[in-house]
Amino acid sequence: MTHPLFEKHKATLDAAIDAIRSRGYWTPFVEMPSPRVYGETANEAGKAAVEACFGKEFELDQPGRSGTAGTEVSPYGVDLNVRYPVCDVEALIIAAEAAMPEWQKVGAAGRSGVCLEILDRLNKRSFEIAHAVMLTTGQGWMMAFQAGGPHAQDRGLEAVAYAWDEQSRIVAEATWEKPQGKNPPLVMKKHFEIVGRGVALVIGCGTFPTWNTYPGVFAALATGNPVIIKPHSNAILPAAITVKIAREVLAEAGLDPNLVSLAVVEKRADTQALATHPAVKSIDFTGSNVFGKWLLDNARQANVYAELAGVNNVVIESTDQYKAMLRNLAFTLSLYSGQMCTTTQAILVPAGGIDTDQGHKSFDEVAADLGTAIDRFLGDINVATAVLGAIQSEATLARIAEAGEYGHIVLPSKKLEHPEFPKAEVRTPVLLSCDAADEKSYMEERFGPISFVVKVADGAAAIALSERIVREHGALTVGLYSTGQDVIDAMTDATLRAGVALSINLTGGVFVNQSAAFSDYHGTGANPSANASYSDSAFVANRFRVIQRRYHAA
Amino acid sequence: MTHPLFEKHKATLDAAIDAIRSRGYWTPFVEMPSPRVYGETANEAGKAAVEACFGKEFELDQPGRSGTAGTEVSPYGVDLNVRYPVCDVEALIIAAEAAMPEWQKVGAAGRSGVCLEILDRLNKRSFEIAHAVMLTTGQGWMMAFQAGGPHAQDRGLEAVAYAWDEQSRIVAEATWEKPQGKNPPLVMKKHFEIVGRGVALVIGCGTFPTWNTYPGVFAALATGNPVIIKPHSNAILPAAITVKIAREVLAEAGLDPNLVSLAVVEKRADTQALATHPAVKSIDFTGSNVFGKWLLDNARQANVYAELAGVNNVVIESTDQYKAMLRNLAFTLSLYSGQMCTTTQAILVPAGGIDTDQGHKSFDEVAADLGTAIDRFLGDINVATAVLGAIQSEATLARIAEAGEYGHIVLPSKKLEHPEFPKAEVRTPVLLSCDAADEKSYMEERFGPISFVVKVADGAAAIALSERIVREHGALTVGLYSTGQDVIDAMTDATLRAGVALSINLTGGVFVNQSAAFSDYHGTGANPSANASYSDSAFVANRFRVIQRRYHAA
Repeated sequence: MTHPLFEKHKATLDAAIDAIRSRGYWTPFVEMPSPRVYGETANEAGKAAVEACFGKEFELDQPGRSGTAGTEVSPYGVDLNVRYPVCDVEALIIAAEAAMPEWQKVGAAGRSGVCLEILDRLNKRSFEIAHAVMLTTGQGWMMAFQAGGPHAQDRGLEAVAYAWDEQSRIVAEATWEKPQGKNPPLVMKKHFEIVGRGVALVIGCGTFPTWNTYPGVFAALATGNPVIIKPHSNAILPAAITVKIAREVLAEAGLDPNLVSLAVVEKRADTQALATHPAVKSIDFTGSNVFGKWLLDNARQANVYAELAGVNNVVIESTDQYKAMLRNLAFTLSLYSGQMCTTTQAILVPAGGIDTDQGHKSFDEVAADLGTAIDRFLGDINVATAVLGAIQSEATLARIAEAGEYGHIVLPSKKLEHPEFPKAEVRTPVLLSCDAADEKSYMEERFGPISFVVKVADGAAAIALSERIVREHGALTVGLYSTGQDVIDAMTDATLRAGVALSINLTGGVFVNQSAAFSDYHGTGANPSANASYSDSAFVANRFRVIQRRYHAA
Repeated sequence: MTHPLFEKHKATLDAAIDAIRSRGYWTPFVEMPSPRVYGETANEAGKAAVEACFGKEFELDQPGRSGTAGTEVSPYGVDLNVRYPVCDVEALIIAAEAAMPEWQKVGAAGRSGVCLEILDRLNKRSFEIAHAVMLTTGQGWMMAFQAGGPHAQDRGLEAVAYAWDEQSRIVAEATWEKPQGKNPPLVMKKHFEIVGRGVALVIGCGTFPTWNTYPGVFAALATGNPVIIKPHSNAILPAAITVKIAREVLAEAGLDPNLVSLAVVEKRADTQALATHPAVKSIDFTGSNVFGKWLLDNARQANVYAELAGVNNVVIESTDQYKAMLRNLAFTLSLYSGQMCTTTQAILVPAGGIDTDQGHKSFDEVAADLGTAIDRFLGDINVATAVLGAIQSEATLARIAEAGEYGHIVLPSKKLEHPEFPKAEVRTPVLLSCDAADEKSYMEERFGPISFVVKVADGAAAIALSERIVREHGALTVGLYSTGQDVIDAMTDATLRAGVALSINLTGGVFVNQSAAFSDYHGTGANPSANASYSDSAFVANRFRVIQRRYHAA
């Protein structure tokens, strides 16, 4: 029943279980890139480790290697030129399936222990992963470290905790004794085995290659499934480092490293063939609605856990902290140039303006003041580039360029020169205003630093519009600013009906686009933006099955 | 937090939670139709209550009533002629949705209490439900009482227990306090609300109108969803009584009775329209592969929990209790004329015969001896009719009539005269033999009392064939008879790979086609016969979502 790695990490696992129950603040992974925690040379060593990958083949001893591929373009303009082994998908699947029975026999406790050891190693390599995340995604350094490192590890650990929580409640053996009146009882001995469903495919996105994949990777692995990670073509390196570390831990534990492998697949048709392979029993996907819908429609042999697009929105009805509200929103819209799935896109403001502690503010004043707040916040080039990072994709650059077509420009986007990376594509957010009737503008996801201040009739209309946006287009996050309890109650009811998380009157150091593992559910699974949540029982419970056997015991 | 009905039934719920953890024998519902337990007049009263329904409209005060329907034909030849209200499906859905917010506010504990009160009332009305089940399905009296009454209630309670187990671990409120070094901590207050997904549709089957619907009904209801039961057109009465009792309990508890309603839908197209209605968020279905696949392909707006067809099989490799084995199998094949989703269809026997405590038995001897065992077991007409019941559908009668086409007849089916119901369609099982190569014969579900003794090369081939049958065609149950531990181990591994429950060397009073709530999982969800299990966490965890809100608390 017990396993050395389970014993080693049991206290962490127990604390994680406590955390998902109580949902207070907790983490074993320090979010500050502190030399005291991670070592005096951790930053240099991590950077050097990443740079050592440049211009070479990334070594990963996987079966079926047929050549190399890799065309990552750094949003910071750094030449990466890392080549990754391309492996025959069938070979990866066969190897993964071959590794499964042994992984099943390790048992839930052993699997949890191995997963925690992997997470612990990933944590120790946070600087290396952070540099890889930063260079491939365009995230600013601090975000790359936190979201790419400890926060991603938190979400992985959270999934392991849920998986253990479910699996540990399944008894391995039972004696069933049914009384038969005056006759001897019927007695049956029963055994219950936890068995994974089969190969788990995890498809990563280009912006959060670790944060958005670790939940699926660790949920699947902990519940007995081998995992194949198919990273976004522009963010392979963080996944490759992750896979390498996982394979090292597995091998050291005497297990088959092919339980975790990397599938570098260049053509969409090849990804589609992989996703519809009969052996693939679950798919975790973060990305576009188009490919997400394709997966849901076509990968019918698998359970698909999908995080798709949405139209996150904030209702501003009134506030007693006008400046702090604007500051909070300015940061939200600027962080990683709005390239978070949780960034606010539509800010719904009554046509008649809002009451504030600074007096009544007209609709145009609110829009202009928010523009000014963003502009001021990004006034220092060092702050600006640290917060904004760089633009991850050509498509987002194109959307910023054409944003003027979507509405009235309140604050135009500017191209900034990065003091450290001269070729970096840095853009400040563009803020637009439009009327609620201009649904074509603001009611589809405009991924990137493009937001709309939307003119609605009044507070009630704003709440109704927010609810409709969530129901029809989905949202991971919704916010509200109001001083009225009746308004807060109405918005609360609207979000319960629409199925979206609500942040109310954020004016301090917490932002609507941030979610904290062990406390905030990321996504509800109840609206079109995602059919699952990081993490809850539903995210793990159907990734394994219980197979029983029974026989007479008397 | 607390609710009077939760307090009333808390001890039962706690015991049910203990039972699903320990998986020993437990039930609060007495399976024997004992006058001491259910009342001296319970049988007569239940029978009278059912007969009082004959030739009348079944009263059910539901919205949108447009007329009546009902064409149940009793397999016992009894004239039922019960008319049921036909209600506009849109009206039922609107009423169900309207009842949802209140049901959400009752909370998980309150919902559990209400569900347990409904189950308690159903239990008290077990005789009435049993008579309704018997007359509509053709089950023998004892099975109708046990499977239709207490065992169905067990499965309902089991689902409530799982639902409570999941929901009770979700904290309603939390304070999140994140240290900020020397600065004051960030403090957020968070609320977590459990919200049902939406209208739950439960589609019943013609053979087990309560046992196969109660898991879905109570899983959905307990997790905050209104439920619409769409019974099989030939087994409406047990569902109607169930709905009526549920609505009475809801009304008495001050809740909207439209949380549970009956949809009598005569045309398949109308059922399809109901199943694909955007408001329907989950579907529980037991029935044919054809309609099940249609639901999975078309009701994409809903999570579908489906129990479909399969080819249950038993491998006979050797035995040290030959007679007891034959007796056990004879009962299995005879019970309710094989009209159970768990009845064995294919019995795989080595061509060279088997070693037994009665000496070596050739393949033909095993087949013939099993035929004789069935024939002897059904020699007493009272035993025979009590065990066999009557044939539920014309389609099954047709399959029995044409069974000779499928293989060599070892034991032909006989039509028996029922001493009590002269018009009852009673048939004894037909036993066939065939070669493993005759896959067209035995490798599709032949629902009803039609079984095959299949000649396989040897024990290893039998195990391999069993595994392939399960993987390709599904199975709810698999059995093995062997005295060799190596054979038992090989079969165990095969069932772990194929994902099916295994019963080993059943020779006593437990049968491969029986599963006991709280101990045996019914279906694994891991092979084509079912994508879910009665019951486990996965059966309930995705029927609700958690919607959070948060705000600064300092």
